Amino acid sequence: MRRVAIIGVGMTEFGELWDLSFRDMGIRAGFEALNDANVTSDQIDALYVGNMSAGRFIEQEHVSALIADYAGFAKNHIPSTRVEAGGASGALAIREAFLAIASGIHDIVVVGGAEKMTDISDIEVNAIQSSAADQEWETIFGATYPSLFALMASRHMHEYGTTREMLSAVAAKNHKHGSLNPKAQFRREIKPEDVSKSPMVSSPLRMLDCAPISDGAAAVVMCPLEMAKRFTDRPVEILTTAMASDTLALGQRKSITEMMATKIAAKKAYERTGLKPSDIDVAEVHDNFTITEIMAIEDLGFAPKGEGGRFTLEGKTTLGGEIPVNTSGGLKARGDPIGATGVAQVIEIVQQLRGEAGKRQVPDARIGLTQNVGGTGSTVIVHILGVPE
Amino acid sequence: MRRVAIIGVGMTEFGELWDLSFRDMGIRAGFEALNDANVTSDQIDALYVGNMSAGRFIEQEHVSALIADYAGFAKNHIPSTRVEAGGASGALAIREAFLAIASGIHDIVVVGGAEKMTDISDIEVNAIQSSAADQEWETIFGATYPSLFALMASRHMHEYGTTREMLSAVAAKNHKHGSLNPKAQFRREIKPEDVSKSPMVSSPLRMLDCAPISDGAAAVVMCPLEMAKRFTDRPVEILTTAMASDTLALGQRKSITEMMATKIAAKKAYERTGLKPSDIDVAEVHDNFTITEIMAIEDLGFAPKGEGGRFTLEGKTTLGGEIPVNTSGGLKARGDPIGATGVAQVIEIVQQLRGEAGKRQVPDARIGLTQNVGGTGSTVIVHILGVPE
Repeated sequence: MRRVAIIGVGMTEFGELWDLSFRDMGIRAGFEALNDANVTSDQIDALYVGNMSAGRFIEQEHVSALIADYAGFAKNHIPSTRVEAGGASGALAIREAFLAIASGIHDIVVVGGAEKMTDISDIEVNAIQSSAADQEWETIFGATYPSLFALMASRHMHEYGTTREMLSAVAAKNHKHGSLNPKAQFRREIKPEDVSKSPMVSSPLRMLDCAPISDGAAAVVMCPLEMAKRFTDRPVEILTTAMASDTLALGQRKSITEMMATKIAAKKAYERTGLKPSDIDVAEVHDNFTITEIMAIEDLGFAPKGEGGRFTLEGKTTLGGEIPVNTSGGLKARGDPIGATGVAQVIEIVQQLRGEAGKRQVPDARIGLTQNVGGTGSTVIVHILGVPE
Repeated sequence: MRRVAIIGVGMTEFGELWDLSFRDMGIRAGFEALNDANVTSDQIDALYVGNMSAGRFIEQEHVSALIADYAGFAKNHIPSTRVEAGGASGALAIREAFLAIASGIHDIVVVGGAEKMTDISDIEVNAIQSSAADQEWETIFGATYPSLFALMASRHMHEYGTTREMLSAVAAKNHKHGSLNPKAQFRREIKPEDVSKSPMVSSPLRMLDCAPISDGAAAVVMCPLEMAKRFTDRPVEILTTAMASDTLALGQRKSITEMMATKIAAKKAYERTGLKPSDIDVAEVHDNFTITEIMAIEDLGFAPKGEGGRFTLEGKTTLGGEIPVNTSGGLKARGDPIGATGVAQVIEIVQQLRGEAGKRQVPDARIGLTQNVGGTGSTVIVHILGVPE
């Protein structure tokens, strides 16, 4: 197996991008990544696209061919593959590209993640987001994506004493980080009290506990590490990719205050790299709701089980803290264009490891981790990245 | 790179399966494949799912997690990946599983392809099928999937003298083959005159030039060839997988009487295996419309360019002919549940190479080929399978 590096990154701003179509966004992110990598479209061997639901958001399936075409790769007829795993679609695209390069099948691969969500009504968006949960055993009975995560939050509060204040601390911290990220959807700080007073969505989750609806695209260029030096003097290595699944319906699981798929994927990732949670300098985790980040930092081993809320409240996951989490602003403030999210997480880690994260730079960051969730934890993908020796 | 074998196959009947849900079909095909392979669900390392548009057909995305869960794999939390490339989604799932096994990442992998199409109106189905074409440059102007293939048919007739009689010969031949396949959607013969007199859909394509709308699922179990002997004494090897892309919109191509992606994928597949078209004993090609099969047998090199219609009319692609094509009945008669189709094509070849194809057996078949098309040829995947030495 060959070692794999990221040699270029690019992304649109995330937000309500009414002047950009799905294909406009894909082109913009892709060209930025190609320029950053100093490669031309003629050098690309394959494309992987992460996208959750273009079929419903913009009534266009087959977006792998669309992006290959509009990015200028169709003239070389390269293979282009779309993957989907709900909210984990972006990380899945990076994973499949990693496997293709590590195994020697392809050399230079572009990964694009994109979602165009704001051209339809919020009610339709909610239905589409919820289609990553179980239609026959959850959604049909009225469960929505927020209400399922609200169940997890309630139970976490009951079992571990997690408080409203702790949930609010997650959102406030991520907005603070987002205010330092020029590509974030929300670049203003909010106070914990703002979160606690925001309108109720599904008790106990309030509006500011929820990530926004977003448009956006993100792209990376990957190649074998041994080839990376031809293009850049600051490659970032993907040390491992680990993926695990769980039941589609939340009610089928033994516990709803943890994501077993996160624990299993993290265990595999740590074992393969010989790293432990305390070796991670910076992490991007899935915070589609505030409770999701609290569970993530517990399941990844950054905080003891049940202590994620307190850990956050104590500032340990803030920039300057013990393990800065979601320095990009996370899904909460950077935005969550579903298929792009897992790619954007990796881009943030690349920028941190290159030392190019500007005002949100974690000093001397050498090892970073991403965790991307599909559904209510039915798919989880963990990547660990590092500065190569 | 390790050699890769198929050790088990299973599929539902294709048709209007009103008593089976999407997950019912997935379970049925999957268990049949596991039984056929003599493996248990505990031995499976990963799952790949080919599906085009469950998000729109049944409002369920994230079907990778759904199938992993309902097939009993969730307890082991194995990675499960959905891939999509319009009509080529099934072949794409087999391709990604092939790459994962060949590279040593996974050992025993299940591939499932499924689509549940008949629970909604035909008008909606047409819109969804057409979403594999270009929404912004084709569909928005009124083009549908049949009308785009009708353009190819018209031009092929104009350039090469392909006739109504030749198109009808494709459909009649595939129905004849389908009449011998107990899992085919249509198991009755039709006469060429029936096709020529059937109602017009989009000139020159008539109703019996078109593949039907279908429900169905198909599954295969794959592993390294070196491991296959543990499970079966008649493994079938996947000799190569080749994939190529083209522009999303038909109008952007230099020629619409050939699929460049087929030609390029076939060229790669022949080069890598050292085989030539005349070495192929049996082939399953994409005949969503009769014209598609005519172009396929030309682009794959079975018939000279422009001669595909005449070649068919002369019986050369019928059972007993020079190169039997679509012995399963093809999309036309076996049925076309989109995500399942590319997997079902491979299953037909496996059964032929095992000598288990019953009344439709091609004597002494040793090498078989599949060709699966997404959109109007924007994605094409070619597999070549063989009886291992």
